[in-house]
Amino acid sequence: MRVFNFAAGPAVLPEDVLAKAGAEMSDYKGSGMSVMEMSHRSKVYQQIFDTAEEALRKALQIPEGYKVLFLQGGASTQFAMIPLNLATKGKAAYVNTGAWSKKAIEEAKRYIDTDVIASSADKNFTYIPEVPAVDQSLDYLHITTNNTIFGTKFSRLPNTGNVPLVADMSSNIASEVMDMSRFALVYAGAQKNLGPAGATIVVIRDDLLERAPKEITPTMLRYTTHSENGSMFNTPPCYTIYIIGLVLEWILAQGGVAAVEKANREKAAMLYDFIDQSGFYSSPVRKEDRSLMNVPFILADSALDADFLSQATAAGLVNLKGHRSVGGMRASIYNAMPKEGVAALVDFMKDFEKKRG
Amino acid sequence: MRVFNFAAGPAVLPEDVLAKAGAEMSDYKGSGMSVMEMSHRSKVYQQIFDTAEEALRKALQIPEGYKVLFLQGGASTQFAMIPLNLATKGKAAYVNTGAWSKKAIEEAKRYIDTDVIASSADKNFTYIPEVPAVDQSLDYLHITTNNTIFGTKFSRLPNTGNVPLVADMSSNIASEVMDMSRFALVYAGAQKNLGPAGATIVVIRDDLLERAPKEITPTMLRYTTHSENGSMFNTPPCYTIYIIGLVLEWILAQGGVAAVEKANREKAAMLYDFIDQSGFYSSPVRKEDRSLMNVPFILADSALDADFLSQATAAGLVNLKGHRSVGGMRASIYNAMPKEGVAALVDFMKDFEKKRG
Repeated sequence: MRVFNFAAGPAVLPEDVLAKAGAEMSDYKGSGMSVMEMSHRSKVYQQIFDTAEEALRKALQIPEGYKVLFLQGGASTQFAMIPLNLATKGKAAYVNTGAWSKKAIEEAKRYIDTDVIASSADKNFTYIPEVPAVDQSLDYLHITTNNTIFGTKFSRLPNTGNVPLVADMSSNIASEVMDMSRFALVYAGAQKNLGPAGATIVVIRDDLLERAPKEITPTMLRYTTHSENGSMFNTPPCYTIYIIGLVLEWILAQGGVAAVEKANREKAAMLYDFIDQSGFYSSPVRKEDRSLMNVPFILADSALDADFLSQATAAGLVNLKGHRSVGGMRASIYNAMPKEGVAALVDFMKDFEKKRG
Repeated sequence: MRVFNFAAGPAVLPEDVLAKAGAEMSDYKGSGMSVMEMSHRSKVYQQIFDTAEEALRKALQIPEGYKVLFLQGGASTQFAMIPLNLATKGKAAYVNTGAWSKKAIEEAKRYIDTDVIASSADKNFTYIPEVPAVDQSLDYLHITTNNTIFGTKFSRLPNTGNVPLVADMSSNIASEVMDMSRFALVYAGAQKNLGPAGATIVVIRDDLLERAPKEITPTMLRYTTHSENGSMFNTPPCYTIYIIGLVLEWILAQGGVAAVEKANREKAAMLYDFIDQSGFYSSPVRKEDRSLMNVPFILADSALDADFLSQATAAGLVNLKGHRSVGGMRASIYNAMPKEGVAALVDFMKDFEKKRG
């Protein structure tokens, strides 16, 4: 029996995708082999790859003039690639909205003059700070659109003028409609909304590929290495990309990101509304900045946390433990989390409150 | 119906492994979720990870004093990581045995004084050159133990004295018994003998981890970043590691690498012996340096190549086209290629020779 998995990532995937992947495992569509066994240079695999890219372009409504790359190494590798590839003038600005922003900033500091122009560190990252107007001579401005640990998200994008906006979208890519033309570079580890861990999506505007990387940049950490070779300079994470393609087709079959966003807003509202009316549970996050994907919540008495978690697990509601920097609980409710899962969680929370609150 | 897949990588995997992965896809051992959906910080996943590492240690008979890392980015990323992490004195030696060696050398040159002390470029890499005694002040000597494109392999390892021997073992790891204590660092992309593309195995001797990486080295390209965090500094390619674990268990179930080597020698002999006695097919590779994994062979008349390939494909023998730098055909016969596959190939070759030779 499947559980409801509220993990922050790797995370729940659509059941239909898993069923299809399982059925196709030993023989993909009469090819006589598994997708895992296919040469990345073969026609049959190239078609899988192209289908995944097309589905991504369609789902995110990526305008003309952007390359899509399928890379490895996670967002953590992007933290270095961004300054190594984009620092032509030598100065960048970052917004600090939590743990992952901080990591991006620390890595950038090693390669580029890095200015943190806004931060919500003063209130343990429970809100999204105002982003001031940016110096137009910057190489780029970096934001984290959704903060997995703290449960915040940008609801309005900063206006950067001509400064390229670079965004870590790992935990809310394809979860709500975003105007991709506002971004110059978007990156996301796949393991939250798009598929299994092991692939990193990069959407990069063509003009950024004309910037010369720093001389010290390893070949594999240059965007052009991958953009000039259709992400096949070396063997890509083929099977992971295949699953990403299936997940994107599932998104399109739901009606695209707009339909998925509608469902996400309903799921999130169900949970936040219940929390807000409760005297026992509370959300640490400012209302207008709340994530649709990651919902941290606190029990009135933290001595009950362990009990809550063990009873939830017994009820098939798993991975609800909050991150240590926030405490309490966190329900990650990505695209693939069914409405029934959130309803079951709310029912469980009501019941727990009644018995123990 | 499954075909016999002679691709150079990604490549054939054991049918039993695929069947197991397919069956466990939607619900891994009653966990209620797919391995793809598991948090890498969960107990259930940590056990999968530890089992894979233990199986690798057992299969390769890795002595005490080595760390095993599961990384991303392929051998191509190692080409940079090795000089970035190991260059303390500032000089390394490389042996050039073909395309992948050359790529390793080109990347190393960007970071360290690189001396190519032996090469078989003079005869299009159809043999393994003698490696002279090495200067004991070198940071390391780098070799490629098996050359996927040219079909050669080191049958005797160079004696490096106290100089660390670093080896790209991507295409023959776990295919024959090797004395791991001879190596200071071994790396391999998983996608030939170990699993799907998307994970890179690094086996590194503890003393190499004490060398300070160059200041410019990105965090994700430092070995210590991963060795100090059990390969979980960030999210590893979890599902790929799970499949690698299944493949390693399959190797152990065959009787370990010694038993697999015996089968590999039989398969290779079947093919090489047939080629050598034939007047129609020929091997470009010097006998004593022939790979057990990748078998290039040439037809007497290259005008028949296209015919050979199309008839082979029709007979369920696929991906036999040779690399453009060698021409002709190449049969990659990794661990998971069954003896029946090689027998079927030899039968087909006999038949083709009779009809067209």
